[in-house]
Amino acid sequence: MIPDSHVDLVTGASFAHVATIGPDGEPQSTPVWIDGDATTVRFSQTTSRQKYENVQREPRLAMSMVDMDNPYRYLEIRGRVVDISDDADNAFIDALAKKYLGEDSYPYHQPGDKRVVVTVEPEHTTTMG
Amino acid sequence: MIPDSHVDLVTGASFAHVATIGPDGEPQSTPVWIDGDATTVRFSQTTSRQKYENVQREPRLAMSMVDMDNPYRYLEIRGRVVDISDDADNAFIDALAKKYLGEDSYPYHQPGDKRVVVTVEPEHTTTMG
Repeated sequence: MIPDSHVDLVTGASFAHVATIGPDGEPQSTPVWIDGDATTVRFSQTTSRQKYENVQREPRLAMSMVDMDNPYRYLEIRGRVVDISDDADNAFIDALAKKYLGEDSYPYHQPGDKRVVVTVEPEHTTTMG
Repeated sequence: MIPDSHVDLVTGASFAHVATIGPDGEPQSTPVWIDGDATTVRFSQTTSRQKYENVQREPRLAMSMVDMDNPYRYLEIRGRVVDISDDADNAFIDALAKKYLGEDSYPYHQPGDKRVVVTVEPEHTTTMG
């Protein structure tokens, strides 16, 4: 689904800016870490953040990411949240910390944080560059 | 409105990922060049792009941008489109080309492109870092 030419923006350490719909129908945008492949994109979310509420109310979302080494190369993905699961033992956020920071565990945990893995199925992509 | 600590993400050459609402109510996300100050953010748009239709139908939007030199520093702006004006003589897109590319005029014009300047009034901001 995601073109071979731009799938590195998902598998690599790009920041994805995730657009969701807030409680009053307004757009919201937040940068997140992602992982995935040509058919699935996943990001981590604490259950206390509004984006977590947003995607349960409205599973459609979009995300865009630019190549940090060539910002005129970008990918937009539109799709929908198909699964939200507990991040057991923080395995997923720790894997993202390894990918993005080179650290074995996520260093920014806050007391009481509960994390989930949000899985997105791409339905439409736009690319440039 | 935009905190002093993060206004450089508007005045500088960061990419803003703009979240709008598409024709079927779905979120869309696109990276754009911006300019502005603590109270106003502007971006350029061709009238043929869907985002142009989107912001006329639903003037609320969000944009997020990360500091390219420190991606854990970011700014999210939620606000609304308060003006859409012709970019007479392409003065605004050329100024953006100067800011982002160091070039005197925008090098990617396509035949028939008609450009507007979209002005956003921030209503709420979130920062990290």
